[in-house]
Amino acid sequence: MVIVSKNNPLVKELSSLKEKKFREKSGSFLVEGEKMVRECVHSGLNIRRIIVRENYAGDTYFLPTVTFGEDAFRAICDEKTPQSIAAEVEIPVYKLQLPEKSCIVLDGVADPANVGAIIRTAVAAGYTELYCINCADPYSPKSVRASMSGVFFARIMRGGREEILSVLNETPLIAADMDGENVFAFTPPERFALCIGNEGNGLSNEIFSRAAHTVKIPMGTHTESLNAAVSAGILMYQLKKTEMLKRS
Amino acid sequence: MVIVSKNNPLVKELSSLKEKKFREKSGSFLVEGEKMVRECVHSGLNIRRIIVRENYAGDTYFLPTVTFGEDAFRAICDEKTPQSIAAEVEIPVYKLQLPEKSCIVLDGVADPANVGAIIRTAVAAGYTELYCINCADPYSPKSVRASMSGVFFARIMRGGREEILSVLNETPLIAADMDGENVFAFTPPERFALCIGNEGNGLSNEIFSRAAHTVKIPMGTHTESLNAAVSAGILMYQLKKTEMLKRS
Repeated sequence: MVIVSKNNPLVKELSSLKEKKFREKSGSFLVEGEKMVRECVHSGLNIRRIIVRENYAGDTYFLPTVTFGEDAFRAICDEKTPQSIAAEVEIPVYKLQLPEKSCIVLDGVADPANVGAIIRTAVAAGYTELYCINCADPYSPKSVRASMSGVFFARIMRGGREEILSVLNETPLIAADMDGENVFAFTPPERFALCIGNEGNGLSNEIFSRAAHTVKIPMGTHTESLNAAVSAGILMYQLKKTEMLKRS
Repeated sequence: MVIVSKNNPLVKELSSLKEKKFREKSGSFLVEGEKMVRECVHSGLNIRRIIVRENYAGDTYFLPTVTFGEDAFRAICDEKTPQSIAAEVEIPVYKLQLPEKSCIVLDGVADPANVGAIIRTAVAAGYTELYCINCADPYSPKSVRASMSGVFFARIMRGGREEILSVLNETPLIAADMDGENVFAFTPPERFALCIGNEGNGLSNEIFSRAAHTVKIPMGTHTESLNAAVSAGILMYQLKKTEMLKRS
């Protein structure tokens, strides 16, 4: 059976996942495109259903699948020119707990594309535990897209600032700051939490005042700051330079 | 005198600068917002005129200034909630010439926000000479905004691929490639050109085949690539680690 009408209840329900409040209500988010769906299947996340456009002839991974007509399919997708497959995926809920390795704290990062790009780099650099305080939702379409498959493989823990600070209690916090130590000359502790703040205002005072170390990226006189995702990427890799050096 | 009508010829002319063909025709681009205009004045670029909204009471830097009503001002701006000042600035034209220091080649970077963010990081890391081949226009509103003030301070040279390759003839090219050397273990030549390719397709064959070195950023198994601006940032800084280490 092909669902054609944009007014069909399932189309409406899946379409509503573009909004945070409906993602929270249903506990699911939408993944779009062949590559992303394939990565999501491989990640082991719980996929509630696959949605394909009528003409789709590819893999559906033996998962429950519904077929949508052109209009209905377009209605649920956020991409302007969607590919022919999407998946409704359960948002993984990870208990707030002590990090096992060095980790990332996102403190008020507001742009979903930055949140996604930071998650993408974090997973690449081996920071798979992320704590999100007051951030753009990592499961929004923009963030999921910018993360590539990062959100599938990251352990994203969300909570209030005090709650997260108490879990991180023993873990030294590293904060980026223009008056900090040059990160290229800095030797980090074996395990740490790198804290990344809001695009305009930086870190909250609560986080900043608890930082054990502050580091900076050296910059020429004409530059005050870098893009949030770019500076996060430089710091994430630089703080693991010893480990990176050993990689083949 | 306050220009009120959106149909006023000057409003139309400035408004058209959002499009590349009109920027090329007039040889100018628009800079929006107090901070950006101030930086632009300090950069020494040639400012053709300042445009302010009626209520503006700040500095106009002794430059020729026109005052626009609300609708006219909004019409020329690309920002959704514009501040009350903008500047029409002459696009600097730099002659294609040998780089004086290590430089950046943008080869088909298509997203204006990436072009801007890369220019921002390049200026911060001291790569002020950039060669653009077949890229998104660095002077588009999105790129200018993403560059912060980077486009004012960068020496942006544009040209065809062969033309630029012949200018770079003696300069070793470094290309990012998944099979390259680990950039953290790599010692670059004293002067080099770091080449950054298209978001989806990477570098053109012409550039890639001329590379003296290929480098990669080590990544975990779940990641194939990083955001173009993020990976460019990591590479730009890492290739200057010896210099960065000495910075205070």
